[in-house]
Amino acid sequence: MKIALDAMGTDLAPAPEVEGALMALRDAEGVEIVLVGDETIIREELERHGEIPSTLHVRHAPDRVTADDPPAAVMRRKPESSIVVGLRMQKEGEADAFVSAGSTGAVMASSLFTLRPLPGVERPPVGALLPTAGELCLLLDAGANIGCKPQHLVQFAHLGSVYAKDTMGRNNPRVGLLNIGEEPGKGTELTIEAHELLAAEKRINFIGNIEGRDIVGGECDVIVCDGFVGNVLLKFYESVAGYIVNLLRRELEAVDDDLLDLEHVFRVLDYAEYGGAPLLGLGGVSIICHGESPPKAIRNALAVAARAVRSDLVRHSAEDLQL
Amino acid sequence: MKIALDAMGTDLAPAPEVEGALMALRDAEGVEIVLVGDETIIREELERHGEIPSTLHVRHAPDRVTADDPPAAVMRRKPESSIVVGLRMQKEGEADAFVSAGSTGAVMASSLFTLRPLPGVERPPVGALLPTAGELCLLLDAGANIGCKPQHLVQFAHLGSVYAKDTMGRNNPRVGLLNIGEEPGKGTELTIEAHELLAAEKRINFIGNIEGRDIVGGECDVIVCDGFVGNVLLKFYESVAGYIVNLLRRELEAVDDDLLDLEHVFRVLDYAEYGGAPLLGLGGVSIICHGESPPKAIRNALAVAARAVRSDLVRHSAEDLQL
Repeated sequence: MKIALDAMGTDLAPAPEVEGALMALRDAEGVEIVLVGDETIIREELERHGEIPSTLHVRHAPDRVTADDPPAAVMRRKPESSIVVGLRMQKEGEADAFVSAGSTGAVMASSLFTLRPLPGVERPPVGALLPTAGELCLLLDAGANIGCKPQHLVQFAHLGSVYAKDTMGRNNPRVGLLNIGEEPGKGTELTIEAHELLAAEKRINFIGNIEGRDIVGGECDVIVCDGFVGNVLLKFYESVAGYIVNLLRRELEAVDDDLLDLEHVFRVLDYAEYGGAPLLGLGGVSIICHGESPPKAIRNALAVAARAVRSDLVRHSAEDLQL
Repeated sequence: MKIALDAMGTDLAPAPEVEGALMALRDAEGVEIVLVGDETIIREELERHGEIPSTLHVRHAPDRVTADDPPAAVMRRKPESSIVVGLRMQKEGEADAFVSAGSTGAVMASSLFTLRPLPGVERPPVGALLPTAGELCLLLDAGANIGCKPQHLVQFAHLGSVYAKDTMGRNNPRVGLLNIGEEPGKGTELTIEAHELLAAEKRINFIGNIEGRDIVGGECDVIVCDGFVGNVLLKFYESVAGYIVNLLRRELEAVDDDLLDLEHVFRVLDYAEYGGAPLLGLGGVSIICHGESPPKAIRNALAVAARAVRSDLVRHSAEDLQL
């Protein structure tokens, strides 16, 4: 299996990408990684790491995507950028997955255009993994689609269920609908109608409405919602953990470090542990990482990509949608 | 000043209400409290507290609101309930504010009907106070209105600004619009149009879009949003603090309690510290508390009510809306 990794994506590129790729190759058997980007810069970075495994490759992509490039224009304006080249490799069978910490909008637009939505998918969602008191929970859509229709949420439920089975090891994923009350009749037109549709879907293990307070309880494997609320929630969650831990830190300064494994808590709450956010419902694998991703986050995103390829996620998604 | 307190609201009523009222009376000068509810039950509870101050009164209200009563029907079906009687006292000049931990829907509907919206207010919002790294931030709407129009968010901004000045001591409250990007053109039709309207409002200190990740940073005094996302966010926040502190607790068990003032952290994150959620834009003061409110939360809600009355919040809101 070959994963194309955008080497120019993070704010500190290509250092976190190169280090993350080397970490991933140490972890995984049967995985090759192609660093996509400015070859000179990548080679310079590689030289700092001594011997490079034969499973790590470089593909030159000279164009640079900047903040001035409108996401939808990147395909046309920057055809030799790391994003477009990396995705094209997958389309042309040279790679099995794409991972990028570059401009989220540009990666989404280019993935959509290059990998194309699977038949039956109108609005490919982006998923985000949330830490809970139980296991991780997949929230989607986390920001790709605002103004969703009820049938879009049903598609998210299908795509999320397949993803949870294939890459998260959940047998019969429990799907919740994010809402402002438990009763079926609560919420907006969108959630009321989506509730009816989801309840009627035989192949979805729909457990009903989920309120904001239920999310961290871990009752769901998959939570579906419109991308506006999903994005607000995800960004809030990422920031609130740091805030609360900071509140505690002042108190904890008095305590001998040896007595505490704060690292454990940080690990649980750290998005970098969970790798990138998968774009679902496309004819390929595309994983989006934060621009501030450390090497660990890149490594974990590569692991997520590898699991998606190995489990045949795309074929399962396509089959599920045809049932 | 007289505050009518629904004595039948919490899950453990009337014990937390009675205890909270006694605490509030010890704190405050010039405040009288009227416990509204079943007089026999209230008197029984009062007897357990020894001597009762002369500033604590009881008003009999025999009807009981149950979960089976549709919120909008409480006014008609249960005219002698603690909610309806307590609000009527304000309308008839016998009380200056109303505080209740009863059914949120019933309190909202009855407040709306009894106290009436101020001229110019189409959708009275409910506010919620969020702890941040700076000061508390008022989020509104926190769940009273879903499917808001842009002008509703502008009204929320005005009502929230007056509230922040009057009861939170903020001179020139900074107002943010909750959105999924920083740029003015980001988000839904609602947020794009609301952004334009807010930017044009001279009497609002509008600081622009606020993303989910900015909330806990404390950049805003007031955040406006549709009640759907506000409600999801508020409930999520209330639950996530407990989750994270629990994550830490396992680690902290190894540590001598004397070394830690965890109480401080809990205090910062505990909604009970901040009293109830004010209903804004009405011709009176109505504060909603959680059904699980402990006495401390009731006391703090009574303090919020007293500040609202003392600062003449309702008159200021009405004047502001006429400018």
